[in-house]
Amino acid sequence: MLIKPVEEMLLRNADHYLIPADIVANVQTDNNLYHAFLVLTKIKYSRIPVLDHAGHFEGLVSLPLITEKMLGFDQLNTDILMQCRVSEVMDTDIKTVQSVGDVEETLHLMVDNPFVPVVDSANMFEGIITRREFMKSFNFLTHEIGRQYDMIEKDFSNSSIAK
Amino acid sequence: MLIKPVEEMLLRNADHYLIPADIVANVQTDNNLYHAFLVLTKIKYSRIPVLDHAGHFEGLVSLPLITEKMLGFDQLNTDILMQCRVSEVMDTDIKTVQSVGDVEETLHLMVDNPFVPVVDSANMFEGIITRREFMKSFNFLTHEIGRQYDMIEKDFSNSSIAK
Repeated sequence: MLIKPVEEMLLRNADHYLIPADIVANVQTDNNLYHAFLVLTKIKYSRIPVLDHAGHFEGLVSLPLITEKMLGFDQLNTDILMQCRVSEVMDTDIKTVQSVGDVEETLHLMVDNPFVPVVDSANMFEGIITRREFMKSFNFLTHEIGRQYDMIEKDFSNSSIAK
Repeated sequence: MLIKPVEEMLLRNADHYLIPADIVANVQTDNNLYHAFLVLTKIKYSRIPVLDHAGHFEGLVSLPLITEKMLGFDQLNTDILMQCRVSEVMDTDIKTVQSVGDVEETLHLMVDNPFVPVVDSANMFEGIITRREFMKSFNFLTHEIGRQYDMIEKDFSNSSIAK
């Protein structure tokens, strides 16, 4: 459990956490790898969401997942980029959250992921929460918590319930 | 300024922040792009350090910096990977820190960077500090700070110096 003051301070910034779907670059499951290669070469995220035609979240794709397909015995195979589809290389083992307010689960997932996709109850893609936005809140929190709270070190010396 | 209890809790984990140079994948300034392409396809970091032969930190290179060189008018140019060197595409505008104990500066840099290179006073590459390790500390801090400190909300209602 997060302690109350920390959770409140994190939630206060929760509106800023979500980068909405309409400004997050994405590709579709049936796009060929050449298209995804071009998109990933041009934008700054190293992994981007893969959606179906209706906008459901299907997985993530990165340049290494694509360039690995190009590795041949002694040279790079570029023809394969036109032949394969994103659905053949995407990573589908991706944890999502359903609300930017789920601070505890999001924090947990961000240890291993640079961003966490947000979906609705029907798995429609709503946007992403990035470590970058959390780092800003972390910075804010580490500076502000002392202004808003007096912090008094607990004395466990006579306590048998300290853990 | 970070407040004391937060800084102390972050510093307590500082030993774990540094991923030492000898286990961080890197390439050298005069490697060709084909070599860097293979390394970046195989490892998990999206950007890796570029060093000179003596081990000085020179910059970072990513797959998009390489694949952008491959873009031609209507097809991908793979020959260029053998012809160009890492020094021609690497990003040299990279902020570094000289100590894992410099928590405040590192936190600041991590808002915009997934990791921060650590160098010594002669610019020799010593390792990296990643957002991932900081997220672990952040998690720890948000859960532990309430166990170790009583937090009492300050009353600014009668204060004229609140800011």
